[in-house]
Amino acid sequence: GKTSTHAVVMAQLYIKNQCYGVHSFIVQLRSLKDHSPMPGVTVGDIGNKVGLETNDNGFLAMDNVRIPRENMLMRHAQVYPDGTYRKPANSKLVYGTMVLLRATVVSESATNLSKAATIAIRYSCVRRQTEAKPGELEPQIIDYVTQQHKLVPQLATAYAFAWIARYMMSTYHALHADIESGHLGALQELHGISSGLKAFTAEMSVSGIEVCRRACGGHGFSAASGLVSMYKDRLPSCTYEGENTVLYLQTARFLLKCFRQPSITPSSMSYIQVKLLPGARWGVKSPEDLMKPILLVEAFEHRAQRTIKSAAQFLESQISQGLDTSEAMNRSGIEFVRCAKAHCYYFVTRNFFQSTAQLKCSKEIKESLLTLGVVFALNGIADNSGEFLEDGFVTGTQMEFVRERIQYCYKQLRPNLVGLVDAFAFADQSLNSALGAYDGDVYNRLYNWAKRAPLNKTDVHSSYHKYLRSILKSKI
Amino acid sequence: GKTSTHAVVMAQLYIKNQCYGVHSFIVQLRSLKDHSPMPGVTVGDIGNKVGLETNDNGFLAMDNVRIPRENMLMRHAQVYPDGTYRKPANSKLVYGTMVLLRATVVSESATNLSKAATIAIRYSCVRRQTEAKPGELEPQIIDYVTQQHKLVPQLATAYAFAWIARYMMSTYHALHADIESGHLGALQELHGISSGLKAFTAEMSVSGIEVCRRACGGHGFSAASGLVSMYKDRLPSCTYEGENTVLYLQTARFLLKCFRQPSITPSSMSYIQVKLLPGARWGVKSPEDLMKPILLVEAFEHRAQRTIKSAAQFLESQISQGLDTSEAMNRSGIEFVRCAKAHCYYFVTRNFFQSTAQLKCSKEIKESLLTLGVVFALNGIADNSGEFLEDGFVTGTQMEFVRERIQYCYKQLRPNLVGLVDAFAFADQSLNSALGAYDGDVYNRLYNWAKRAPLNKTDVHSSYHKYLRSILKSKI
Repeated sequence: GKTSTHAVVMAQLYIKNQCYGVHSFIVQLRSLKDHSPMPGVTVGDIGNKVGLETNDNGFLAMDNVRIPRENMLMRHAQVYPDGTYRKPANSKLVYGTMVLLRATVVSESATNLSKAATIAIRYSCVRRQTEAKPGELEPQIIDYVTQQHKLVPQLATAYAFAWIARYMMSTYHALHADIESGHLGALQELHGISSGLKAFTAEMSVSGIEVCRRACGGHGFSAASGLVSMYKDRLPSCTYEGENTVLYLQTARFLLKCFRQPSITPSSMSYIQVKLLPGARWGVKSPEDLMKPILLVEAFEHRAQRTIKSAAQFLESQISQGLDTSEAMNRSGIEFVRCAKAHCYYFVTRNFFQSTAQLKCSKEIKESLLTLGVVFALNGIADNSGEFLEDGFVTGTQMEFVRERIQYCYKQLRPNLVGLVDAFAFADQSLNSALGAYDGDVYNRLYNWAKRAPLNKTDVHSSYHKYLRSILKSKI
Repeated sequence: GKTSTHAVVMAQLYIKNQCYGVHSFIVQLRSLKDHSPMPGVTVGDIGNKVGLETNDNGFLAMDNVRIPRENMLMRHAQVYPDGTYRKPANSKLVYGTMVLLRATVVSESATNLSKAATIAIRYSCVRRQTEAKPGELEPQIIDYVTQQHKLVPQLATAYAFAWIARYMMSTYHALHADIESGHLGALQELHGISSGLKAFTAEMSVSGIEVCRRACGGHGFSAASGLVSMYKDRLPSCTYEGENTVLYLQTARFLLKCFRQPSITPSSMSYIQVKLLPGARWGVKSPEDLMKPILLVEAFEHRAQRTIKSAAQFLESQISQGLDTSEAMNRSGIEFVRCAKAHCYYFVTRNFFQSTAQLKCSKEIKESLLTLGVVFALNGIADNSGEFLEDGFVTGTQMEFVRERIQYCYKQLRPNLVGLVDAFAFADQSLNSALGAYDGDVYNRLYNWAKRAPLNKTDVHSSYHKYLRSILKSKI
């Protein structure tokens, strides 16, 4: 872009006409004297983009640019002065950094969705609309069930992602030593888990932020909501650090590998080895049963097992039709993505209840968190109901229980919604929202924010004198 | 905002302390001499927002502003000089304009999704990625099944919306005369249909544009894709001209009214009166059956009937629990939205096949369009599979047929995808996209677009001299 003097460039390494694949090199882009581009270097800004406007995203072309050998990043692979190439201890070690970056995306997805839920829920408790009973005060919009159905699931998802982000980070650090010492199993596991979870959390966080923004109605249109720049800045997270679909496919490959090879299946994914019982049925007998984490997790586990198995069978059927592996994999892409998502849902749901169970807090707080977990799980079932109904594991009657219980949970949670977002403890400065500030003084903040807009510096804008006046005064 | 000299203000009409409800008044906001705000008027720009940056969206406060009686828009309601109030011939006549505006949103949703599909499909035929077989050219990304599964449904939806937009507009004009003469039935029907269709098309068009943008990977991040401003400018369409959820609820109310009163059910919605047979099953025996429009429409019809009936029952059960109507309606909100969406899906699918059947064109073109219709319908079933499986109307085996057939259709359509987007005949100027131009010269256009970015006017940007230089030269 316009700022960097040096770049780390991923490029093919050739020594004496032999290609050794992609390696990393430090390349000087601009003079340290006057910042002008180095000879052979064409560099510039890529122009406007969907978000992250302040990032200096650049384009770069190089024509006969020479760099010294020492500029190669040689922690893993090395090139000696005589041109000898030394392979890295393991070619997959570089994945370690990617795992960490993905864990960071998971974490940021959680934080931003939490902020969005905070803003929209606080606003919905201040905003009143549509006289329900003649003469009475208009209800707070949070009391509309359709509004609850938009926002409470986002709050539940925010908590779910906060738990899974914590899990990802601690697992990464726990396994990091293993990886450094070349223990590949841990790396495979981390790569397999983190790929899908990055895609899953980025996707749901971004769509959740937009649900929150729209739930603020016309005020969500204004950047004063704080949700506009948040949304735009998070959109690219579905593309960077591994495009989401590509990442789901990575996770699916790992799942299928585990499915076929019990020996490499890590303990966190041992459910894959459990045999699917034909005719298995969900043990839910009443709406009350849906408050039991074990039954909820069971439903997601079954769905993940079933979709993994069916993806494996689909792939085999493609291969048995005579397709080569790469084309068979391509044709199985949709099934692969489906089972990866099912796995992520299972993983995040299970982790929600495990984390809540371990929490040291009052009975009341634990109960609220548990209910949030139930909301996350039940909406996961309702939103993907076909995947649970298709093989008869869940019945139509049970699905009615699910929908009934979702509304029941909203009602239970209603008095604690503000408490549950206050618990994130975001400072007003960090929310940067006229709608979501702690004091709820929405309308004054909105008005003051608008007054500060550049166009309002003068009552009559310069465009009036430049263009409008002559049009208005003309006699057309 | 900063431009308008006058506004049409919706305000409560009071005459001699009696309130007659909301009416429209022309209010002068700014002086015609020097454009300064009129006495008592505070007016300004609302500041940044999510899209439509060039729209002059303003805020307005009025303090003791007086206007002459003639400034009231008196086509329907009237106030005489002596203060006598004359009611409009019918208080619902004002809905007519709203219907037209909603039909316009439907139409714009269709156009923009068509543009997005054009850009992403053309780009996907130029872009190559990931060596599938060593030594061979990387495949065009359109040949990845996961990419087809993103883009072909958007193309099918674009056609579906183009048909329904045409239907909406012609129905509006056909019924307009009826409405003007006070025939309320036609207005009710139009209001009932257009509310849901506005929400349905706006929602799916916006999410479809974003699917197209993400399907362009990193290049979809750049505004040069043409998809960034398109997406941002369409986002507000889910909120303006009636917030989507509110509109779905309007349509649901109309559906339930028809469900209860056969006499007011318009012929276009007569399916609501068909009795649901207990134990009804879908007549699909093989994947080939899924190419039959009549069977596809039947599935959507059944789902709509079932969800309307179940929404009606849900509402009744709430009322029978002793809730007053407004609270019972509130509690039924989620069920209401569900049945409204189911109705829209049915309506749009049915219209797709009806419109295609009436088309005068070659057998080959008709076949392609029919296959697109099948893609629209089958993805509608697969994406909402639970709603079809829940009562046993569709079986798990049939759902497997659905998924199999979707991929089959993608394969059938693959050779004609470019033809099907070229058929929209968008000029390059109107697409405004480096990725989607007719000539497919993606990379040169991207590069030239970036070079024109303001930051690239000089090789070394002024920020270097202002800030960066002193930091780089310092010895920290």
